Parts: sequence; structure tokens; C-alpha cells
Amino acid sequence: MLDQLKQIAIIGPGLLGASMGLALKARGYRGRIVGVSRRPATAARARELGCIDQAVGGVAEAAEVSNLAVIAAPLSAFEAIFQQLATVANDSLIVSDVGSTKRSVVDLANQYLPAPGRFVGAHPMAGSEQQGPDAACADLFEGKPCILTPKDNTDEQAIKTVEQLWRALGMRVLHLSADEHDAQTAVISHLPHAAAVMLVQAAQKQGGWALASTGFRDTTRLASSNPSMRADILAANRAAVLTSLEGLHGEIEVLMQRLQAGDDAAVLDWLDQAKQARDKWLNDKG
Amino acid sequence: MLDQLKQIAIIGPGLLGASMGLALKARGYRGRIVGVSRRPATAARARELGCIDQAVGGVAEAAEVSNLAVIAAPLSAFEAIFQQLATVANDSLIVSDVGSTKRSVVDLANQYLPAPGRFVGAHPMAGSEQQGPDAACADLFEGKPCILTPKDNTDEQAIKTVEQLWRALGMRVLHLSADEHDAQTAVISHLPHAAAVMLVQAAQKQGGWALASTGFRDTTRLASSNPSMRADILAANRAAVLTSLEGLHGEIEVLMQRLQAGDDAAVLDWLDQAKQARDKWLNDKG
Repeated sequence: MLDQLKQIAIIGPGLLGASMGLALKARGYRGRIVGVSRRPATAARARELGCIDQAVGGVAEAAEVSNLAVIAAPLSAFEAIFQQLATVANDSLIVSDVGSTKRSVVDLANQYLPAPGRFVGAHPMAGSEQQGPDAACADLFEGKPCILTPKDNTDEQAIKTVEQLWRALGMRVLHLSADEHDAQTAVISHLPHAAAVMLVQAAQKQGGWALASTGFRDTTRLASSNPSMRADILAANRAAVLTSLEGLHGEIEVLMQRLQAGDDAAVLDWLDQAKQARDKWLNDKG
Repeated sequence: MLDQLKQIAIIGPGLLGASMGLALKARGYRGRIVGVSRRPATAARARELGCIDQAVGGVAEAAEVSNLAVIAAPLSAFEAIFQQLATVANDSLIVSDVGSTKRSVVDLANQYLPAPGRFVGAHPMAGSEQQGPDAACADLFEGKPCILTPKDNTDEQAIKTVEQLWRALGMRVLHLSADEHDAQTAVISHLPHAAAVMLVQAAQKQGGWALASTGFRDTTRLASSNPSMRADILAANRAAVLTSLEGLHGEIEVLMQRLQAGDDAAVLDWLDQAKQARDKWLNDKG
């Protein structure tokens, strides 16, 4: 598996990066995995847990002798990481990432990397509200979608390698433009997170905590995500998130109007449509 | 356990009613459990699965020789059930329910029952997006809140019996007025359901299904609930649901304003508050 890659560097071995290391080892990757973190304790812990083979001190050092460097750090750290990667003299290096937004990341890659054609933006849609290497697990990626956002001038071999990586870890790989990715994740990922936060904020203001049960727990799970990572995502995808919020606003108005008008048949239709759509999705994805 | 109750009638042995039967048996209840359903097949299936001891043909027949009748049918069926209970000559009968709203149920009990003081409104906050006796499980109620809404003139013995019932099944019993219950469930239960539906509707309109992963799945779980049961709840709790929707509307505006203004520190605060509140709730409830 991935035998052409003698060494993979994971830049930021947190939940996603460390899970990637574990998953590579579980799937039989025989190369070497190094990790580098802004907080040395994180990389040391990832090493202790067997997620990486070695913790190295700097991004450049990690990338110099690697065939693939995957940036798995919070979005706010990407610019500094690209600046460090720009100093690396390694013609065979492929760079990829796991960032939750893609336009801003692809733009930074173009701005800083000496060979932007060897950068392949990627977003494995996996994670949880937990964080850090202690939460890592080898099957985190299994059966989930991974979006690649190559451009017209992206190196074919680089695309193929990154595709192989995520397929090997059990993901369904899809290609989208960076802008399509950002518009669709705003709706399917950033909006659900924002809605979860809104529901918690509403409970704080209007009360009812003592009555909260499993429905509330599951619907608001994402509100326990790391706030600064989430704030980074909302900021990096500002325009698309605002569009998705307008859509949610429109849905509230649909329901309010139907309830106010006493049009319970129309409320039922609206609920029916959603149940059918969600059940179909669950069924199709298997 | 509950030895004073020789027979309990479950009116509507669907997910909640059938789970109640299973839970009673699992906890050692030695009396008899009868069930009655508008659809005879449902009661027969509950009998087959061991959730009830006998399926009987009508509500009056079930209630005549029972000490406790618990209405576990959809809200839209309550009025017809109270009308049938009104014909039962059984001075020792206590009536309760598991309805998701309480003002409309308490009003119907007052309107129809010959002894409304022996009605105790109850809402065990348990369930799932599934339905029917096949989805029943004996530990559905374990560790979850159950709200009772007795009035000043409710019989003390009746309150005590219903309290004992739900405590015996592992629930934390709380007392609230019917109006308080309805206001708080609007925020903590009906609003999360509505938000889940809105997120699915937004995905239908704006796209992104191929990218949906576990965050979307969990946040929208409630959108797969039974639409007509949910439409009943929204209609029965119309005013409080509209108030909670206005609260959600306000939260959307908070986030949109902060994002539009580029005030990412204020977005972070808003996310931080929600994470702290939710994590505290999770931690407190244990």
C-alpha cells in the first residue's frame, strides 16, 4: 500500500492527523510516518500512542525528506506552515491537507509554495467534537467522503497519490472545485454546527435544561467542538456560511408562517419531505 | 414493585407504550399489563414481543378492570380516548399519559374525565426517531427526565402512583405546570426537531448531500421522526413553538451580524459560551 511513499509527514498530529497515522499503520503502510506540532507535547503524545514513528522539531525538517506532507493543523496555522514549506528544497514533495475549507487553503498554497502544482487540497469529512491524539482512532475515516479540490494545473501524479491515500483509509473520494466544496460544506457541515450552537444558546436564554434528553444531546453534539477551530472555519468560509444562514432563516420563516396560519397540512408536508430526503440519504449511503 | 396496581392498561403500545411494558416486566412488576391499539396489529405485535400480557379490543374494556391507564397514543388520538375513558365506571382508575405536550392534554382530561383529579399528566422524555413495538427496549427510560404536571386539585395518591411508576423505570421525576412544561419542551425538544428538519430542507435546496457525514447525520437525526406525530406536537404547542422559533431567529441574526462585521472574536465568544454550557450540562447530568 502506497509503497512509492517512503515517508509521510503529518503536520499537526491532532485528532485527524493522529487518526491518519493510526489508520495508515492499521492498513499496512510500511513507510515511515513523522509528525510535527506547534506544541511539542502533542507530537510526543502522538508518538507515545503509536500514531507516528517520530516527532520532529520543525515543518521544514519534517518535509525535507518526506514524499508527502499532509497539513492537519487548525486553519489559522496554515499560512505559517506554507511559509515554512516554501523554504524546503524537495522536488519530489507532494503537499496536501485536511482543512475544512478549501478556497482559502488553495489560495495560500498558490501564494507560497514553489511548486503549487504539487499541492492537492483535500478535506476528509471525518472528525468528532473531541480533539487531540488521545481521541484518535484507526477507523475514523472508514466509509466517509473525502473531497479533493485539484486545479487544472495540478500534477496528475500528486492527485493520484492523495487519492490512493484516502481510498486506502476507506474513504469515498470525490472531486470538486474549491468554491463548490466551500458552498456545499457551508450547508452540510458548517450550518449544522452553527445550528447546534444556536440551540444551546436558545436553551441558555429560554431555559429547559432539566428537560433535555437524547434528542437535544444528539442535535447539539457539534456545539461541543473546539470553539477556536470552529471560529477559524466560519471566518475562512464567511460568504458561503452567510448564504447558508440565509437559507436557514428562510426555513424558519416557512415553518413560522405555516404554524401562524394554522396550516398544519403544510407543516406535515414540510416534515414529510425532510424525513423522505434524510431516510433516502441514509439508505443510499448504506 | 407497584404492588398496589393489579393491572395496568397501556393505550397505544407503540415505541413508548411497548417499552413501558418491557421495562415494567424487566423491573419485576408482577401485575398484569393489557394493551389496546387503534390498529389491532400493533397490540398483537406488542403481545407477541412480550411487551404486554394481553391485547384487548377497546379502551373502555382495557380501563374497566385496570388500576392505571396510561395513554401512549399520538396526540391526535387523545380526544377520542378521553371520550371513551369517560364512559368507564371504575372509581379506582388512575389515568396518566406520555404525551409530548401537556396544556392541551390536561385540558382534555378536565373536559372529559368524570374524575379529572385522578388524571396526572406525564411526559417521560425518552424516545427515538423509530416507532412501533418492534423498536421497544426495556431501558429506554433509564436516567432520563420525566415531567409530571399535576394541578392543585390532583389526587395525592394518583400523583404518588405515577411518580412511583416512572421512578421504578429509572427516570428522574420533575414537577412543572403544564404551561411551564410546554414552554421548556418547545425550546429543548420541539425546536431541535424543527432545526433538524430545517437543515435537511436547506440541504435539499442548496445541495451538498454527497459530502454529508456523521455531524450532519447526528444533528438531523430527529428529522427522521414520524412526521404526523411531530406535526401533532407542533400544532398542540403552537404558541410556545413560535416563541422558540423567534429565539432561533434571533440567534441566526447574532451570528450573521458578527460574521458580516468581521467580528471573529465575538463569534468565538458565542461558540465558547455554547460549548461551556453544553459541556456543563453533560457533566452535571452524569
